[in-house]
Order: sequence, then structure tokens, then C-alpha cells
Amino acid sequence: MMLGFAVIGAGRIGALHAENVARVIKGARLVAVMDADLERARAAAVDGYSTDEFDKVLEDRQVDAVLIASPTDQHAGQMIAAARAGKAIFCEKPVSLDVQLASSALQEVSKAGVPFQIGFQRRYDPGFAAAREQLDKIGRLEMFRAITCDPEPAPFEYLSGCGGIYADMAIHDIDIARFYGGDIVEVTAMGAALIVPQLAQVNDVDTSILTMRFASGAIGVIQNSRRAVYGYEIRTELLGSGGKLVIEEERATPLFRYDASGIHGDFHGWFIKRFRQAYRDELQAFVDAVRAGSPPAPGTRDALESLRVALAATRSLRDGGSVRVE
Amino acid sequence: MMLGFAVIGAGRIGALHAENVARVIKGARLVAVMDADLERARAAAVDGYSTDEFDKVLEDRQVDAVLIASPTDQHAGQMIAAARAGKAIFCEKPVSLDVQLASSALQEVSKAGVPFQIGFQRRYDPGFAAAREQLDKIGRLEMFRAITCDPEPAPFEYLSGCGGIYADMAIHDIDIARFYGGDIVEVTAMGAALIVPQLAQVNDVDTSILTMRFASGAIGVIQNSRRAVYGYEIRTELLGSGGKLVIEEERATPLFRYDASGIHGDFHGWFIKRFRQAYRDELQAFVDAVRAGSPPAPGTRDALESLRVALAATRSLRDGGSVRVE
Amino acid sequence: MMLGFAVIGAGRIGALHAENVARVIKGARLVAVMDADLERARAAAVDGYSTDEFDKVLEDRQVDAVLIASPTDQHAGQMIAAARAGKAIFCEKPVSLDVQLASSALQEVSKAGVPFQIGFQRRYDPGFAAAREQLDKIGRLEMFRAITCDPEPAPFEYLSGCGGIYADMAIHDIDIARFYGGDIVEVTAMGAALIVPQLAQVNDVDTSILTMRFASGAIGVIQNSRRAVYGYEIRTELLGSGGKLVIEEERATPLFRYDASGIHGDFHGWFIKRFRQAYRDELQAFVDAVRAGSPPAPGTRDALESLRVALAATRSLRDGGSVRVE
Amino acid sequence: MMLGFAVIGAGRIGALHAENVARVIKGARLVAVMDADLERARAAAVDGYSTDEFDKVLEDRQVDAVLIASPTDQHAGQMIAAARAGKAIFCEKPVSLDVQLASSALQEVSKAGVPFQIGFQRRYDPGFAAAREQLDKIGRLEMFRAITCDPEPAPFEYLSGCGGIYADMAIHDIDIARFYGGDIVEVTAMGAALIVPQLAQVNDVDTSILTMRFASGAIGVIQNSRRAVYGYEIRTELLGSGGKLVIEEERATPLFRYDASGIHGDFHGWFIKRFRQAYRDELQAFVDAVRAGSPPAPGTRDALESLRVALAATRSLRDGGSVRVE
Repeated sequence: MMLGFAVIGAGRIGALHAENVARVIKGARLVAVMDADLERARAAAVDGYSTDEFDKVLEDRQVDAVLIASPTDQHAGQMIAAARAGKAIFCEKPVSLDVQLASSALQEVSKAGVPFQIGFQRRYDPGFAAAREQLDKIGRLEMFRAITCDPEPAPFEYLSGCGGIYADMAIHDIDIARFYGGDIVEVTAMGAALIVPQLAQVNDVDTSILTMRFASGAIGVIQNSRRAVYGYEIRTELLGSGGKLVIEEERATPLFRYDASGIHGDFHGWFIKRFRQAYRDELQAFVDAVRAGSPPAPGTRDALESLRVALAATRSLRDGGSVRVE
Repeated sequence: MMLGFAVIGAGRIGALHAENVARVIKGARLVAVMDADLERARAAAVDGYSTDEFDKVLEDRQVDAVLIASPTDQHAGQMIAAARAGKAIFCEKPVSLDVQLASSALQEVSKAGVPFQIGFQRRYDPGFAAAREQLDKIGRLEMFRAITCDPEPAPFEYLSGCGGIYADMAIHDIDIARFYGGDIVEVTAMGAALIVPQLAQVNDVDTSILTMRFASGAIGVIQNSRRAVYGYEIRTELLGSGGKLVIEEERATPLFRYDASGIHGDFHGWFIKRFRQAYRDELQAFVDAVRAGSPPAPGTRDALESLRVALAATRSLRDGGSVRVE
Repeated sequence: MMLGFAVIGAGRIGALHAENVARVIKGARLVAVMDADLERARAAAVDGYSTDEFDKVLEDRQVDAVLIASPTDQHAGQMIAAARAGKAIFCEKPVSLDVQLASSALQEVSKAGVPFQIGFQRRYDPGFAAAREQLDKIGRLEMFRAITCDPEPAPFEYLSGCGGIYADMAIHDIDIARFYGGDIVEVTAMGAALIVPQLAQVNDVDTSILTMRFASGAIGVIQNSRRAVYGYEIRTELLGSGGKLVIEEERATPLFRYDASGIHGDFHGWFIKRFRQAYRDELQAFVDAVRAGSPPAPGTRDALESLRVALAATRSLRDGGSVRVE
Repeated sequence: MMLGFAVIGAGRIGALHAENVARVIKGARLVAVMDADLERARAAAVDGYSTDEFDKVLEDRQVDAVLIASPTDQHAGQMIAAARAGKAIFCEKPVSLDVQLASSALQEVSKAGVPFQIGFQRRYDPGFAAAREQLDKIGRLEMFRAITCDPEPAPFEYLSGCGGIYADMAIHDIDIARFYGGDIVEVTAMGAALIVPQLAQVNDVDTSILTMRFASGAIGVIQNSRRAVYGYEIRTELLGSGGKLVIEEERATPLFRYDASGIHGDFHGWFIKRFRQAYRDELQAFVDAVRAGSPPAPGTRDALESLRVALAATRSLRDGGSVRVE
């Protein structure tokens, strides 16, 4: 049985998922792409049909699973509708910027008993996945550290509506922190608007250091910046009682050019390219789990907990001091 | 129009190509897999049919192209037959261990006017391909250097029948030398049988240094070893008047583990994994060229010249002194 | 005029300084080594005399400068006496674990108008010094990050009396943070006693993350661990608007051994070896400044401010929340 | 007993040695500096006397050892005179460009029984020395590889009189090859004048690949270029049956700057800086050996053998083919 997909939202990431479902993922086929902008849906539909009606795909019995890649404020509503329609759900992060709404939506999903996976693709990146497999080789985890720097800030219109640096950007590092270190019980945020000063007007920052305490007793820190002129940077380190794991910045290729002006490495320009394989592997894992009848991961609890940590961080930034993750 | 493929030979590399044609390559489909061992053909056939008759696939009008991955001593004959049948040809390296036979087969191919590509996949590796694109950034090439070390020697039965270290192993470095530096006019080989001493009985070596002079005036060196206990190693350096390009050893992931016993990187174990993407990209390039009516590359001349260099190196090793590449 | 030195305290670091004064530093000579343990003083005295009387060296007109490398609780008293005796003072860090006492001692030094330098040798390490020179090449500093991990924890007797992880260990990272980023106005500490659990009894930790805000608006983080089984680790990163500077972990030599068990680099085992050159260069700088009549650096203000930050961090660790540096 | 030195020749390297003898080396003192240019001798004499008469220092009973850093064509004559005067001899490489003359001079040294060391400082570089100590950890040496590239070519007047690329530049790599691999029995040279085309007029090259066979059965290759626009480059690799040793290019510090134009490391500009410590350590070893009455190393045999290999390489370059080292 091939899993029939409807992709909801045909923006950059939706189009990528549609292409992967249609061409790359084994055991899956693309039935439809839905977008309010029908033209955009059409362009992404590959060999499926395109539509601008969400209800239509829910009613379509060819559609076994929906892949929600619409704007964030539509995720929760679409999840609830899809859950009620009995569809398996793959949802881009975050479920919602409102933890209550996210919680309700995830409860509906659980109640309906449909398979659910949240789009934290970093867990499926080959390097991050290999680190997970080697985690027990460094003994007990004592200190977590992650850095993610975007190459350059997105426009202010985007930044001011994205839910803040923690729900939008750091949430990937938070998910990875939980992937290796388990639940986070307390966070303290510190930040500054140094790159896009207007962010101060919306109580947000572009340069952040977020510290955390894990339930296990380990501690951790996430550093984020909206700008790294030398290129997109992701680096993660796990210090344990028996050694450390370092997931270094990944280069697109192992080519280096040395000339009179310096050394020039082959950076991935941006996340779509950096996580090309992860975007495939997460979807393959989802399809495999659904077909096997086993629960996909990361699932509802991971979706909710990462959001809780991100929102606690946002609160800590605004009010100062450390905030317990409830 | 989808290009219909018959894969000839269903060993490790043939099976990989069949899988790629069937699942990954755009514009291609797998019609058949042929192998003298019908069971093996069947296992590799994916959604094509399997057969143990070479003539059958030549007569099949669904077959537009043959991908020859049979034992080396069958390549030339199969190429000639396929050329006469008007099929496009993708042939694994080398065409033959006999330069006369290779030359005749390639002449038949040219005479028939069918598209031809030789399986030097390294040119399509992302790092090697990127270096080609940046070649003019380092001015005039002055010195070429490549090292390839296998993780461990293949069994003596294989080694003694493979045509020697130059035609079997160094030929990939030779092709890459030509890819960046153009034609090679002279080679001098030096080697020793240090790892598998019986190789001396068949006039072969397991540890080799091959120097070369390019028609351009540049010089180069290729180092090969049949054993690197620390892992499969491929590294290439291009020194030019304005800088150097280094294609470092590629890791499977950017993960490093540090513990009391040392640093542990994530090596590709072996060439199938190291060149996974290159095996796809070379085939995609072949399909794209055939469909566009443009000549695939590397083509007949590249196939023949690399072989000539390899055989000149073999002669230099046996007779001593430098040997001109005719 | 050669600057005549009396070294006070002939422990490991005192003996190193005595050797450097006697053999390496230009413009200096070793007059005496003083230690309550006369045997130890004798062993370190090279070509100077040895004594167990502090007053004797203060009265000695051959002694132009004292180098205080005695136990921390004697620093302040010796500084005051030396200042009143008109000697130039080089004092190992920290001046005192009591900020009031440190402040008084430093005021006496200022009042006496004698040259003073605090032993923050990291500023004189070639890599750290070169980063300071290149600081303006990365634009405005936005985020500071330092990690220092000892290879293994010192005995509990040492740890329980050292003033805590911030005054004892992190203070070097704090000084370096100030070296690049200027004054620190606020810190928040988070830590755990994971390696030496008894540290909890003395309100100390062995694993720490300390965040900070600079007066400039930049933010920073210092990570410390009392154990890194893979070797002594010091790494510092400066992220700016125009790039980043990274002072990587320094190897004793650029030698790497690759074998079947991993990659083996050539670590500096411990700080005496890691900062061998820095210990010389800081002393040379002190001698040069005193002879030239210019103020040595880092001086009284640097000594006091780093201590204030370390003690604020200690308070933050114990009481929770962020603490302003007064 | 302090070893009294006369330094012969006060050029760049002679002045460096004089400074080290006077200031750094334990157990040595600088008695005199001799140079035909008395002004230059004076400038380098530190606390010794200066003279333009070679005989004077030979007659001086304060002079226990001569350090010969004069122009190459004076080395052999000065060695013979010094040996007859019973002085210990430290001689900069090479002894002579004429193997007969070198041989005679070295025989005189042996006959006189005076201690002798040749200035192959690379053996005393911390990284190269550490590799020597770890050599048995990689099993039997199978392949040697060294690359040395100068940052830019010296003026043609220098190059045309230096004895060619092998006696002048590659001889350091040759000595190191012998240091790890023992005696070399055969060499084959290949080169081109690509950077300084006039070198062809004097039968020399600026870009070279030199292959060699060791008496042990191992093989090796040395690559040299007179120009590397990205900086002075020295890298050596030893491949053995049980692993490999790599002495990477050494940076002056572990500082890297990343900005929009690339990555900028902290290169040693040139050999005086790169081998600063080695120049001290080789001299210290000489002094220690002479004072202990043990033979210094590398000694007469190393001096002669490296020269023989270099001259065989020069012959191979001119006449073609491989040349046995007699």
C-alpha cells in the first residue's frame, strides 16, 4: 500500500516536501497539493492534482496523510480537522505560537489516534542522527552546547511576525537539546537587538544566549545570531563524563581553495541545502512508521515540549530571570 | 521520452546502477537487467524484467541504452554489439585491459555514432566537480597530486586478475588528473609489494608512486596504497600560480567523537558509500545528454587516454624508467 | 639598569617565574626567592639567594620588584607591604577572594604609585594576543564565547579551598572576556556538581555555564568543566558584525597519528605547558613597562574588575538569578 | 664548563645563531663573531668580540666550538681548518655543493675526532621530533611524502648560484626522509621551470617531484615549489602498516578569522619564524652532546648522504631516468 499524501501549503518548504513525496520517498505518492494561491499549488503539484480547497483533500479517500506546510497560524486548525478526518499528520514546526492552542490541537490528534510527526528535521540529519547513536559512548551527558547563526537576517516584516527568536529559530536547537538530553526543566534567556535594532520595539532580539537545566541534572546553552557574514553556521557539542561529541559545521563539499586572500570553504548557503537529506529522511521515517503501524517520532509530546521551552525562553527574555518549564 | 535502460551485469555496481535508474534518475526507466546468473539478475531487476540473454535486450526496442557493468573482459564485445544495435552506451571502467581491443571497440562506437560515456564517477562527485568549476581561480595549474588508499587489500585472486594497480585502482586518479590538467604525455612508476608480497610474482605492487608530465608543462604525482588501517582515503591537491585547491578526505558526516583513546571521525567505509551521489549524478548527466542529443562526458577519448596512461605506467613499473604515452 | 626581582613563593608557578626571570627575561635578574619552606626556596633560587623572611627582601635594595606567587590568602598583605616599600609588584591572580580586601590592597598600590601587574597570562598567549590585534577586523563585537575544561579535577581539598569555580578557574575566561569586550555589567550563573558531588556541600559546582552582558551591549557565555577526558581544552570565539575570530584549542605540535583506533593529536597536557610562552611574555612586558616608566597591563583595575565579576557569578550561582556587577 | 663559541659568518642565520648562543642556549657562551664584513660581525657579536680574521678565532683558546654559517663555498675549507685546530664544529647545510670536497672535509673531521653536527634543524622541530618518537606506533614505514613550498621565489641571482633546487631546498626534505626511513638507494627527479622560466637556462627547475626508494624497501616522494601564494607550506606524511603520521602545516597561532572574504589563518611567513624553536633545540643538543662527550646528530654521515641524494636528484633531473645513490 502506497501512502497517499496531500501537501497543504505550496511555499518553499511545501514545494520541497511535495517534490520529495512524488519523487524520492519510497512507499509514498503525491495525491494533491493545496494552497490558497491555486497557481502556486499547481506549480508544486508534480503528478498530483492541485486545489485551493482544504476540505476537498480531507474528503478525498486517496489521501491517507496530510503534510501541513501552511502559515503557522493555520497549523492548529488544519491539524484538528485532519485528525477528525482520520488522516495521518506530518506538521511543520511549530504547531502554534500559542501553547494552549497547540496543546488542544495535539490533544485532538491523540484522541483521534492518528499518527503524528512534527517537522524537526534536524534529528534526521545524518550527523545529528549518528551523534544520537554514539551518545552512550561518551558516558553521562553533562553539558550541551549548540550554536545556530543564520547567514543574514530575514526582513523585519518576517521577523516581527515569526513568534520571536525562540519559537522561530532556537526551537530547532531546543528540540535537539531534548533529543540528546531529555526534558528541560528551566531556562534563562539573555539577548540583544544588535543587528536589527527595531526588534527591540517588538520585545525580540537577534543575538541570544539561552541556558537550560535538564531534568537529568545536566546543563546546556544555545547561542543564536541572525547574522554570520562568513556563512550559515550550525555546530553542536555534547560533553559527557567519558568524552565529547562534536557535530561540526557541515560543508557542502570537502573542497577548500587557498589563495592570497585566504581560505575559501564550500558552505551550504542556507537551510534548504544544508538539510536536503534530512528533509527526505524525516519524511521516509514518517511513511515507514505509518505503514508499519508504529508511532512516528518526534511526535506530539516532542512538539509540545519544545514549544513550551521556547515560550518559557521568550518569557525569560521579556521578564528577566530564570523560568521553569511547566 | 523516458530513456529505457538495460543493465548488463548484476554484481554490486550493476545492482546499484539498476536501483538508481529505477528509482532516482529523472528521465530514465529500467527495462531489464541481464546477468548470466539469472537469480542475481532477478534480485536487481526492481520493476524491469530479468534475463540471462544479452541478445534479447539488444533486440528489445524498449531498450534505448545499455549500462555495461559486466566483468571487464566482456566490456569490449558487448560495447561493439550494442553500438551495432544502435544503443546508447554507458560502460563501467575500464573498456578493456588490452589497449588494442579498447581502441577497436571505441572506434566501433564512434563509427556507429551512438552516445557513449565511461564510468569515471569521480568527475561527478560534488567536491571534484566543484574543484573543476573553481580551477581558473588558481591561475595556471603547476602541480597535481592525488592519493587514494583502499582500507584493506582485496583478496589475491581479485588482485592478480584485475590488470594491475594502475588499470584497476590508479585509473580513477589518472582520469581526475586529466580532468584538471589535460593530456598526460609521460609517466614514471615506482612501487613495491609490501602488503601482499605475492603480488611480486605477478609483477604488480600494492604501494605505488606514479609521476607524470602533462602536455601543458605541469607535473603531477599519484600515490596509491592497497591498505590504510585508519580508513579509506582519497585526497587531491591542485597547486596553481594563484593558489591551490584541496579536495580533502570526505567524511560521511561532520561528527567527531573525542574520548580518552583519541578522536574518532565518521569515515565512509568504502567507495560505494563515498561516491553514492557521484554514481547518481554521472548517470543523470548521461541521461540528460542523450535526451538532449549532446555528447556525454567523459567519452570515448577519455576512456582510451586514461587506459593508455595506466598501461604506460604498468610498463614503466615493469621495465623501469619513464614511458611516453603514445 | 637590570630590574632586580624577588620571587615570593616557590611552588610550581613561583619556581617557573624564578627560572624565567633568571634565564629568559631580558632586562631582569633574579635577586632572591622567598618561601616559608626554605628548602623549596633554595631549589628555585637559581643564581639568587634564598630566604624564608619576607621582610628581608623588602629591605634589600637590590630588589626592585616583587613577584608574588604565594598562597592566595597572603597576596593582599604582601602587596600592601611591598607597595609601602616602593617595590614594583607583579602578583599572581587573584589578589584576594575577598573583594574588600582586594580593593584595599589595590588602593594601597595606587596610593604608593608603584607599577603593578596582575598575572592574567592568557592575554599574552600568542593566539589570544593576535586576536586582540585583529579585533577591529570583525566590526563590532556582538557575542563572546569561551570554553575552558581541565583535563581532570584537582583533589577535593584543593577545590574546597580555592574560592569556587569562578574565582579559581573561570576568572581567566572572565579576564579574557573583558580584554576583548570591555566591562561586564551583569552575570547569571548556572552549574551542577556532576563530577565531584561533594562540591555541593560547599555550594560549588564542577560544570558551569556563566552568561554575561557587557557595558557595550554585547552578550557572552563562558563554559567550564573540571573534567575533559580527551584533554585540556581552551577555545574562544568572538562573533562580530563583520566576521568571527576563533582561537582554537592549541596543540603542542601539528602532529597527528591516524591508526585503527582513531586520530591522536598532540595535546598540551596542562596549563604550565599550554601557556609556557605566555608566562614569559607577560613577565617580559612587565619588565619592559617598568623600565620604560609606563603602566604595566593588566593592572589594578583589571585585577579588581575580574574579581568582582567572579564574585558576582558566585553569588548568582548560590542565590539564583542575574547579579549586577557593582 | 661553558662551551665557548665562535660564529663564522654574520648573515641572517649566523646572527640568529649568535643571539641564541649568547642568550638562550644553556652551557654555551658566545666568544666571538667572525665575518669578512667587520661591521656585520660587530652587529651580531652581542657580548662577544668581533673580528674579520678566521685564523684569530681558531687560535683563541676560549673558542671550543665553531659554528660555520658562512657562504657555502667556504664551509669545507673552514671545516678542515677548524678540525685541525681541534674545535668542535657545527656547520650549516650543505657542507659543499661538490660531493668530493664534502667527502674530503668530512674525512678530515673524522680523522681529527672532533665533534661534528650538520645544521638540519628540521629534525629538532617539535612536531618532526615527536613524529620520530611515535614512528614505531605506525608499524613498518611503507610510503614517505613531504611537501615544501616557499612563499615566493628568491631572486634569480640567488637561485642560479644555490646549487639547484635539490641541494638548496629539497635537501631538508631529503634529510627528513632519511631521519624516518633510513638510507635512500635510488631517486628519480621530474621538474619544470614554470615560475622563473630563466631557471631552464641553468638546468634548474622551480617545481619538482622527486621519488625515491629506501634501502628498507619503502618508497617516497618529495614535492617542492618555489611559490605558494597562500603562504609557506611544509607538510609531511608517513604511511605505515599500522597507521599514518601527519605533520601538518604549522600555524604561528591557533587563531582563525572568518569573514565575508574567507578564512584567514595565522601563517608563519618564513623559515626563520617557522623553525625558531628548532634552531634553538638543535644548538642545545649540540652543546649537550659535546659537553657529555657523546657524538652529536645529525653528524658526518647524515651530512654526506643527504648531499649524495640531492646530487643524484640533480643528475636525474638533467639526464632523465632514475639514478642510484652511490
